[in-house]
Amino acid sequence: MRKGFASDNNAGVHPAILQAVAEANTGHAAGYGDDPWTAEATGLFRTHFGEDTEVFFVFNGTGANVVGLSSVVSSYHSVICADTAHIHTDECGAPEKFTGCKLLGVPTPDGKLTPERIRPLLHGFGFEHHAQPRVISISQVTEVGTLYRPEEISALARLAHDHGMILHMDGARISNAAAALDLPFRTFTRDCGIDVLSFGGTKNGMLSGEAVLFFHPALAENTKYIRKQSMQLFSKMRFISAQFLAFFREELWKKNALHANLMARILENELRTIPAIRITRKVEANGIFAIVPREIIEPLREKYFFYIWDEQGPEVRWMTSFDTTEEEIHDFARLIRQLLP
Amino acid sequence: MRKGFASDNNAGVHPAILQAVAEANTGHAAGYGDDPWTAEATGLFRTHFGEDTEVFFVFNGTGANVVGLSSVVSSYHSVICADTAHIHTDECGAPEKFTGCKLLGVPTPDGKLTPERIRPLLHGFGFEHHAQPRVISISQVTEVGTLYRPEEISALARLAHDHGMILHMDGARISNAAAALDLPFRTFTRDCGIDVLSFGGTKNGMLSGEAVLFFHPALAENTKYIRKQSMQLFSKMRFISAQFLAFFREELWKKNALHANLMARILENELRTIPAIRITRKVEANGIFAIVPREIIEPLREKYFFYIWDEQGPEVRWMTSFDTTEEEIHDFARLIRQLLP
Amino acid sequence: MRKGFASDNNAGVHPAILQAVAEANTGHAAGYGDDPWTAEATGLFRTHFGEDTEVFFVFNGTGANVVGLSSVVSSYHSVICADTAHIHTDECGAPEKFTGCKLLGVPTPDGKLTPERIRPLLHGFGFEHHAQPRVISISQVTEVGTLYRPEEISALARLAHDHGMILHMDGARISNAAAALDLPFRTFTRDCGIDVLSFGGTKNGMLSGEAVLFFHPALAENTKYIRKQSMQLFSKMRFISAQFLAFFREELWKKNALHANLMARILENELRTIPAIRITRKVEANGIFAIVPREIIEPLREKYFFYIWDEQGPEVRWMTSFDTTEEEIHDFARLIRQLLP
Amino acid sequence: MRKGFASDNNAGVHPAILQAVAEANTGHAAGYGDDPWTAEATGLFRTHFGEDTEVFFVFNGTGANVVGLSSVVSSYHSVICADTAHIHTDECGAPEKFTGCKLLGVPTPDGKLTPERIRPLLHGFGFEHHAQPRVISISQVTEVGTLYRPEEISALARLAHDHGMILHMDGARISNAAAALDLPFRTFTRDCGIDVLSFGGTKNGMLSGEAVLFFHPALAENTKYIRKQSMQLFSKMRFISAQFLAFFREELWKKNALHANLMARILENELRTIPAIRITRKVEANGIFAIVPREIIEPLREKYFFYIWDEQGPEVRWMTSFDTTEEEIHDFARLIRQLLP
Repeated sequence: MRKGFASDNNAGVHPAILQAVAEANTGHAAGYGDDPWTAEATGLFRTHFGEDTEVFFVFNGTGANVVGLSSVVSSYHSVICADTAHIHTDECGAPEKFTGCKLLGVPTPDGKLTPERIRPLLHGFGFEHHAQPRVISISQVTEVGTLYRPEEISALARLAHDHGMILHMDGARISNAAAALDLPFRTFTRDCGIDVLSFGGTKNGMLSGEAVLFFHPALAENTKYIRKQSMQLFSKMRFISAQFLAFFREELWKKNALHANLMARILENELRTIPAIRITRKVEANGIFAIVPREIIEPLREKYFFYIWDEQGPEVRWMTSFDTTEEEIHDFARLIRQLLP
Repeated sequence: MRKGFASDNNAGVHPAILQAVAEANTGHAAGYGDDPWTAEATGLFRTHFGEDTEVFFVFNGTGANVVGLSSVVSSYHSVICADTAHIHTDECGAPEKFTGCKLLGVPTPDGKLTPERIRPLLHGFGFEHHAQPRVISISQVTEVGTLYRPEEISALARLAHDHGMILHMDGARISNAAAALDLPFRTFTRDCGIDVLSFGGTKNGMLSGEAVLFFHPALAENTKYIRKQSMQLFSKMRFISAQFLAFFREELWKKNALHANLMARILENELRTIPAIRITRKVEANGIFAIVPREIIEPLREKYFFYIWDEQGPEVRWMTSFDTTEEEIHDFARLIRQLLP
Repeated sequence: MRKGFASDNNAGVHPAILQAVAEANTGHAAGYGDDPWTAEATGLFRTHFGEDTEVFFVFNGTGANVVGLSSVVSSYHSVICADTAHIHTDECGAPEKFTGCKLLGVPTPDGKLTPERIRPLLHGFGFEHHAQPRVISISQVTEVGTLYRPEEISALARLAHDHGMILHMDGARISNAAAALDLPFRTFTRDCGIDVLSFGGTKNGMLSGEAVLFFHPALAENTKYIRKQSMQLFSKMRFISAQFLAFFREELWKKNALHANLMARILENELRTIPAIRITRKVEANGIFAIVPREIIEPLREKYFFYIWDEQGPEVRWMTSFDTTEEEIHDFARLIRQLLP
Repeated sequence: MRKGFASDNNAGVHPAILQAVAEANTGHAAGYGDDPWTAEATGLFRTHFGEDTEVFFVFNGTGANVVGLSSVVSSYHSVICADTAHIHTDECGAPEKFTGCKLLGVPTPDGKLTPERIRPLLHGFGFEHHAQPRVISISQVTEVGTLYRPEEISALARLAHDHGMILHMDGARISNAAAALDLPFRTFTRDCGIDVLSFGGTKNGMLSGEAVLFFHPALAENTKYIRKQSMQLFSKMRFISAQFLAFFREELWKKNALHANLMARILENELRTIPAIRITRKVEANGIFAIVPREIIEPLREKYFFYIWDEQGPEVRWMTSFDTTEEEIHDFARLIRQLLP
């Protein structure tokens, strides 16, 4: 398929990642994570996030979110998130099904929760009729391509912790965030008060693999059972772990993410020269949202598939990835211009 | 790690499988299965199992079983299986958690259900106090290395269908079964009345990937939602599908399975020459169960890790795989002899 | 306890209901509903709602809602309701826990859903990432004391059915609605397109008992198992059924509801003479919502306990019931006047 | 209906219980248990079981078991019980559905678990593939009418606690047990190491009501949410609590239970004079199990309905209750004699 802008998970695998998988394919290894690759990859995460970080590898992003949330909730809890959050709109109800919890989606203009937007939901503590607020979940990068600043995350953490709650981050695109913020992972996660983190690999050039990180060991006491019971325990674990080794080696994650972010910026600049296209969200990482003339959508999608974000508008989403080229961007912009009247 | 006999999932990936993954890593592809590799792999399954077979790829065996079972049960149903079944003993309760159903584990001498062993559980139909019997689930190869003959499966299918029930097969090692029986997959599954099949790839040389097959389209009407909600939908699906292409190409599955089975037979023959070792189960595929002198277990496990199946005995399990060599078997047998007094 | 305005479920049991319980206490009766009282009560519901109505008695309102919803959903579905709905705010997540579904709470000014408010949520049909919209659930009377008119319900039914969805009514206070609308139950439920109805008894003078009604037998095919599995099957069923016999006899339900509604109207009139009290919602049944000076709340609650509906405001809720007297209302109003500066 | 021997829940309500309900029907009371009746009833339970006992009233026996178990398990746990246990055979899978746990039903000759029968299941602790053994659940009286002696319960408690497990008792017929053992409730429950107790009222002359008792406050920290979320929180709680007041007043529970037990003994004696009837289980409380000539079952059931326990045999179950009379027993025995050839 022609490379396009549908999603960063439509991209393939970075060659260095695939190489690492191949190199791990040597003889036998104990299953389910009791192997040297997993030990080493766990160590790398601990280097980044602190030595007492608990690390669990899983297959995919929904799995990471569900395993992370399940570890810190009971079924009578509620989880507060933006109404655009992946856990709320794109996981077919997996969090509710697996945790039994209520998810409360908060409308936001920019995909970002704030203490002000959350506070009205922080009531009913101790009242048995009311699902007990337990988790605030944010996405970094958000689903609309925006970023939380460290101080914004810290404010949410204070709010959560003041109420005995947990702050979870869905970091499916955490590399793009780190690259855009130019900050170490830890600085805008653990150091800001994040308790549980879904650390994404797949959308940034890995074949398949995410990590669930816990910054307080007590939160993860039962996660090994939860991971298994939620069907997210890989028998041949070394092949996820080896990917993460390559991911961190020579900061591949950063190169990939910087590139994707840069490509988004270039695409944005191109699009801003086209008056018929109105960019609707701040472009802070690798996603661009725009309202486009309805009549060009179908011919454009024939060549470059992408998703319509909101039929009203219509607003579309274009994602760049580690393997997007400038040439593709120019081709794409050229095609848009051709299609416009 | 030294290759050993712990599990066929301790083996790595067959080079042809890895090659297929690498070859699929070309440009972008639509996510979640809407790609040509998945279309082609689905077609191959249909060639083997019939054109109206519904095919869903998932990450792992527990996922395959849960997605398959969830598609055909409601929470007030029960699932009857051998008490050695993987769904009953090795999935940390994932089937109960995800389906809400009761699992009824039936004791067997050889891992195999029979109509006689099942019939006492087939009561209470229509009685609202009783979890309604809905599925009979068998494993082929069983967890103790034995095989069902086609006529045995047909008898179970008749029993199930006479009671309005579904017959499910956990085929995590279905290739070993097909190779051992020297029968096409379809002959001992669909043609015998199996309704839902977990088709395993990972234990037979794949990197990661299983398929859930339904032989009546109506059973699979909602499976796509169930797969997503059970966290088993892979975004970069082509990389599972491409593995299955290689798996079926030039009957790689069969070569791998025949080899593993042969190695088990050779190991069995070696072991039968050692009087202190008592083989406890018929060796029909790639698993060998044996009672061994307790004092040799730890020194033996230091060199070749393996699982103790039953502390009583003690009975141990040794599995061969596609990459086991005759030399390893002879080394292993030699080591046993050395360790014996 | 002094009678007050906290909730209609703080009232006791109407004497005729208790009398019916006592009269049913004669000898033995088959358990779980296979008794003459249940047959007769079921018949009465069928007289009101149509002969093919499926009727299931349960203990309480949350049970009725969960049994009704569970009968018509799978876990990958979503349920759309007002964000004030009892199922969303007052059942501690029981619907999510038991059905696995996502609940989507829609903000409304008056507790009432409209097609316009629902339509933005009706997307993603067939898209496996999205919890599939399956149920629209409305409350009649709403949790803020307002009423749907029949034509409003019909419009919601058309919307639901056009999308292959189910329209559920939480009728915990359905008697108050019928009395206020001066319509037969059927006219504003089944005849408007309601598919599943939680029919309340407890809040209108019964000891304990609700009914779940299905207007299409196919929807209720498995409800008997669901009721049992959701712990809502009463062994001594006759004692719920007998209550419903008295409830319908000589239209006790109507007398009780008319009285409660009238008392609310009288209280409203009293309150409207007090300038410091601002009634915030249309008083259409037996609930009154008002913003009151904060300083009188605690002294008032000491004498007459009631709930604060919204700390902002503060807005309070006062409910009348079948046993409220005019004298109590005048006393209450007098006390308010005394407490005001 | 003619009084019979089908079940102790086919009996009605003891007049003193109904009287207590009527007396509680005075004015308003705060809902959901915040009323003086509930405070007093809770106090009575604490008098019997210890001042730090946590007490939760629920509607029915299945609810009591599920609320109790849910309070002490996570979904990756398993619950070990006799394969005749009510939670395993008569709750339509409610425990699995609500807790997500695996239930392991152990075959027994007499409905009673022993350490020997349980021990083979106590393995896999810490092994993530294995549902973690967490609860041993026993029924007192058992479902086949037998009794545990205190020392038998203590032995099970030691086994459970040695493995970090919980000992749960389903005491649906606990009054019959206390009466038969001639022991205070506490002596054969808490004092033997029971941690969680479902205390039954309905089968011993109450209208509806059970209590879930916890003997370690920490186990019950979240039970109030669990009770609500499992649809077992009664709004008009005083009407359950008032029943328990009457239940304990002048030891009504004991009179009822002694009577039922005595009637069973008399029936047993009668039956032992009929050679065609073979009593199959020790008669220790109020249940009698017998193999009877198949041809008399239907004519006998026409006059006195009862359940067939096991079609093989056929073995039938006859239960006596607080309102069984000697005359009915003699009539019943006479009828059996008439029907025999």
